[in-house]
Amino acid sequence: MSKVKKINHVAIVVRDIEESLKFWETAMGLKLDHIEEVPSQASKVAFIPVGDSEIELVQPTTADSGMAAYLEKRGEGMHHLCVEVEDIEAKIQELREAGVRLINETPQVLPGRKMAFIHPKSTSGVLVELYEITAAG
Amino acid sequence: MSKVKKINHVAIVVRDIEESLKFWETAMGLKLDHIEEVPSQASKVAFIPVGDSEIELVQPTTADSGMAAYLEKRGEGMHHLCVEVEDIEAKIQELREAGVRLINETPQVLPGRKMAFIHPKSTSGVLVELYEITAAG
Repeated sequence: MSKVKKINHVAIVVRDIEESLKFWETAMGLKLDHIEEVPSQASKVAFIPVGDSEIELVQPTTADSGMAAYLEKRGEGMHHLCVEVEDIEAKIQELREAGVRLINETPQVLPGRKMAFIHPKSTSGVLVELYEITAAG
Repeated sequence: MSKVKKINHVAIVVRDIEESLKFWETAMGLKLDHIEEVPSQASKVAFIPVGDSEIELVQPTTADSGMAAYLEKRGEGMHHLCVEVEDIEAKIQELREAGVRLINETPQVLPGRKMAFIHPKSTSGVLVELYEITAAG
């Protein structure tokens, strides 16, 4: 069975990254790696390493994205949990065989990684993202 | 500043641990470490190591706990994010000086660890738990 390696990141949807950094960076003493505009997801993201994982603060940049709708409905808080796997195609195949409902039947291929989301209906309500790292970051 | 070492665990509140394990254990292939009754928190907890962290599935065992109320109101999903710190008293002091609102002003001392919760008002909506490990598990 394809190996789950670690928690890659926990994504937190926020209204204002600068405001959130007052807690995560200034008060907690974590070190911000960088902030990135992610137009494909209509958001900007702050990457904050914590041990072998990351906390990602995600701020929607348009009012009509899924992330913005989530923020409007549920408020700020944890949005998804990303686990890193060795072989994402093999894992997706295993999940499909186990009857798990997927949001992405085939992985999205991005520079340095492949990714796919699993539907919260199959995961006790957690939006789970799968990552396979395909190149050193 | 007192060091944040890693994500200790992500806690997921669930209705039925056995049902949730069909995803996390059977489908995802993670290995359940053990299930523990935690009467002080009116719940039972499944501990699932993932890399250097854990996923904890928390099932309320009474209808009148905070966790049960959360489950009723928000449904299953991620409940809190626990980060491990080197010195919890120092971290609490630092947070207090930064104006962060705490749920526990002094840490709860349990076998093997000290713990305290930070109020979601100060953290972009995330219930954050601090852990200091005081003995090998």
